[in-house]
Amino acid sequence: MVKRVAIVGAGVSGLASTKCCLEEGLEPTCFERSEDLGGLWRYTEYVEEGRASLYNSVVSNSSKEMSCYSDFPFPEDYPNFVPNSLFLEYLKMYANRFDLLKCIQFKTKVCSVTKRPDFATSGQWEVVTLHEGKQSSATFDAVMVCTGFLTNPSVPLDSFPGIKTFKGQYFHSRHYKHPNIFKDKRVLVVGMGNSGTDIAVEASHLAKKVFLSTTGGAWVISRVFDSGYPWDMVFMTRFQNMFRNFLPTPIVSWLIAKKMNSWFNHENYGVIPEDRVQMREPVLNDELPGRIITGKVSIKPSIKEVKENSVIFNNTPKEEPIDIIIFATGYTFDFPFLEESVVKVEDGQASLYKYIFPVHLPKPTLAVINLIKPLGSMLPTGETQARWVVQVFKGTTLLPPASVMMKEVNERKENKPSGFGLCYCKALQSDYIPYIDDLLTAINAKPSLWSMFLTDPRLACAVFFGPCTPYQFRLAGTGKWEGARQAILTQWDRALKVTKTRTVQKPPSAFDISLKLFGLLALLVAVFLVFL
Amino acid sequence: MVKRVAIVGAGVSGLASTKCCLEEGLEPTCFERSEDLGGLWRYTEYVEEGRASLYNSVVSNSSKEMSCYSDFPFPEDYPNFVPNSLFLEYLKMYANRFDLLKCIQFKTKVCSVTKRPDFATSGQWEVVTLHEGKQSSATFDAVMVCTGFLTNPSVPLDSFPGIKTFKGQYFHSRHYKHPNIFKDKRVLVVGMGNSGTDIAVEASHLAKKVFLSTTGGAWVISRVFDSGYPWDMVFMTRFQNMFRNFLPTPIVSWLIAKKMNSWFNHENYGVIPEDRVQMREPVLNDELPGRIITGKVSIKPSIKEVKENSVIFNNTPKEEPIDIIIFATGYTFDFPFLEESVVKVEDGQASLYKYIFPVHLPKPTLAVINLIKPLGSMLPTGETQARWVVQVFKGTTLLPPASVMMKEVNERKENKPSGFGLCYCKALQSDYIPYIDDLLTAINAKPSLWSMFLTDPRLACAVFFGPCTPYQFRLAGTGKWEGARQAILTQWDRALKVTKTRTVQKPPSAFDISLKLFGLLALLVAVFLVFL
Repeated sequence: MVKRVAIVGAGVSGLASTKCCLEEGLEPTCFERSEDLGGLWRYTEYVEEGRASLYNSVVSNSSKEMSCYSDFPFPEDYPNFVPNSLFLEYLKMYANRFDLLKCIQFKTKVCSVTKRPDFATSGQWEVVTLHEGKQSSATFDAVMVCTGFLTNPSVPLDSFPGIKTFKGQYFHSRHYKHPNIFKDKRVLVVGMGNSGTDIAVEASHLAKKVFLSTTGGAWVISRVFDSGYPWDMVFMTRFQNMFRNFLPTPIVSWLIAKKMNSWFNHENYGVIPEDRVQMREPVLNDELPGRIITGKVSIKPSIKEVKENSVIFNNTPKEEPIDIIIFATGYTFDFPFLEESVVKVEDGQASLYKYIFPVHLPKPTLAVINLIKPLGSMLPTGETQARWVVQVFKGTTLLPPASVMMKEVNERKENKPSGFGLCYCKALQSDYIPYIDDLLTAINAKPSLWSMFLTDPRLACAVFFGPCTPYQFRLAGTGKWEGARQAILTQWDRALKVTKTRTVQKPPSAFDISLKLFGLLALLVAVFLVFL
Repeated sequence: MVKRVAIVGAGVSGLASTKCCLEEGLEPTCFERSEDLGGLWRYTEYVEEGRASLYNSVVSNSSKEMSCYSDFPFPEDYPNFVPNSLFLEYLKMYANRFDLLKCIQFKTKVCSVTKRPDFATSGQWEVVTLHEGKQSSATFDAVMVCTGFLTNPSVPLDSFPGIKTFKGQYFHSRHYKHPNIFKDKRVLVVGMGNSGTDIAVEASHLAKKVFLSTTGGAWVISRVFDSGYPWDMVFMTRFQNMFRNFLPTPIVSWLIAKKMNSWFNHENYGVIPEDRVQMREPVLNDELPGRIITGKVSIKPSIKEVKENSVIFNNTPKEEPIDIIIFATGYTFDFPFLEESVVKVEDGQASLYKYIFPVHLPKPTLAVINLIKPLGSMLPTGETQARWVVQVFKGTTLLPPASVMMKEVNERKENKPSGFGLCYCKALQSDYIPYIDDLLTAINAKPSLWSMFLTDPRLACAVFFGPCTPYQFRLAGTGKWEGARQAILTQWDRALKVTKTRTVQKPPSAFDISLKLFGLLALLVAVFLVFL
């Protein structure tokens, strides 16, 4: 029976895992390498080794209603997309509310997590930690790895011929903090992910000129979506997801392209994705097209050659003078404290059942949380994973036989498209709603929509047609939260209240009046005809 | 016969006026108070008295294809919306191309423009100027006033009770240059015109918090319009304008509201215009909703009271601490060098026929250029006015009797809505296309669309359905430009080329292939049925 759980990392997933353990009667000990909680959301002026590093202006990509812990909504007065400092504040509130701090050991680095000699029967782990130069060791019944995947910068310098001759400054986006360094410079940002695009846009307010080089391109989504609603509250509904998954992939891709191009034609702006079928992670940015149309940012194809003070791009003859290059070329991940026999990372993916459990272990007592990039929010994903994992630890939920798990992992590695719905690269990506539902089903926490339509149709409509907010994951079964129903029914109020900070008395317009008059007339005619 | 023309100011209108005079054989002398040309477009680090003042980040609100001189397109590699430094460069190119510099006297302030004693017969003016402390006087046959209306800041301090007690910094938007002053401050911007909105958005990148206070609200348009095309190239077509003017105002207002709210619901974002019928000048801004949804800018109603270190807004109980207040409360205009009997400014408007000629003068030898805010570009408006004015000066085009002119002016003052099309405040606003057409008709330069549809249907379609670019004003008659047709037919190429800086080979998608297969099948069936 699992009792003592070691949790590695006190970021969003580590906090959720600690809380899940506590509420299920386990004894979590959370080891945090740095001096405070928050993980990637804790902005510091200097890069800390082994910890993700933000730039000062980072704002969440999912809206507050979509990216909160499922039983702990963001404060009402928080903006819909939360700047990093407020996000950290929220995590601290969460830790206080559920009294998590007592379980966290700060400034404690996990050096190694190894199987105990009797692992085959006990499933226990030996965890060696280092705190202020002092090494300790302890035995745990289970381990939850919550270290994320944004710590090892990937800079494939070999892909940029001549980079060694470059006399300007160059560095990985991880080292970027403030835009001041770009003042009056000619800047090249390589890589059009979220960071690359953010940095290019931010630099463009100060730089002489900014180039954003991308090989693959990307769909760019604005946080300000249809009629200004937060993009994910519109896009991520059960109804729309079902609709998408019902259609063949080419039609879904075509619909998505049409939708994306309605904001701005991605081809005309040079950012069109090369692969329009397999969905790369979209880029969330509100400003990019505005910066391109005013000439502040120019999109460029991949780099052909770097020279001393300039860069030549593929398919473009002109040599562009460049002072600074930022490589926003992403990250690789590994688990230095784990033996390779436990979790092996190959080609950017680990052999984990449901992205969580190593398939080869005789006992399911080690879980990796949030090693997944759903097209949805990371926070409730990690939290739901943790809820499932804790039930597996406790033995109330069983894993299938190793062969079944192996099959799932192998199928994912093959990355064969199903032919329906959005097509993802399955190494790390998954369809948000079905993935979460799957985990909830395993712990009997998935509410039945059918019976809800009969017993509480108002709620059922909000759940099915409305945004798939995390409160839905707390409506029933294990971990049910009494506030969930109310939170769902008021989610739009909270989303709108913060922006509607000035109201105007609406005078009835002449048009409204005419419409009403016309309606009245039609009614009279109808009544007249009926009684004729 | 008019020969010598004095032109006051060497901004966009002054340059156009000088060029129009030159090409019609007149002798222009352009007096420019400052040391260089460009008027409002010449950014300086310090505010100069009597000259409009830009902030560093100003970008044009009309696209390059819509806001160029009608016979001088912007260079191909200019972005669609032109930053101020490039705009100034363009004006210099124009001045060089048409050899205007020889006509400009820099550092020369016009002190007074008075009627000569024999004005009733000669129509001549005495122009007194001051150059490096030395006053001179000269006689001119005609005068073109090109001083604009953005020089006298309007700060109605009385409307802000308690402002005198405010201990923070406050100033008019005219004095704003760089956002650095806002670092970590709590900023309040009063007034939601283009400057106010720009400043609020720019401040929000550095400030602790930004409030944007507006009484009237406004429709906010993004430069990045439908599918990313420049807003004015989509909105400002003869076809759409005709369509709008054909519909009753309430329906047009409703359609406009629907369109504006499709980007973001103006009510939910607190910026909804108070008066939804009479069209206030819309605000051009690409970033505002993104800054509101991330909580960086909060919209507030009008100010109730200013305290020592805080502000109370109407209808909101909370007192907001404020460090800096910017009054983006607009400008008033006057003509200090003219006697009131010539042009009198009352309630923000002057009694000018077609916004140009004072109605009381016995001789039409004084014209005011660009004292109008069309919902279109100022530059071609001023240029077309100048072309008409020069013909009036030469006597080839006659003004109607004073009574007719007076009637037009009075009707405008009454500001009675026509009931059809967009409803403007007529003091300074006018419907762009009909206004320009009217001037062109007067100088026989308006091309006939009917005959064009017969002789050159391709061009006619571009003129009628495409953006109403200034090249259209040079297709025929007085001032015809040979390059106009070609410029119209290639306008979209120039607009798209600058942003399409990366291209991707489009692989035929499975969907395209299925569509084609389906088409082929349908064709076969049809053929089969026909021959059955």
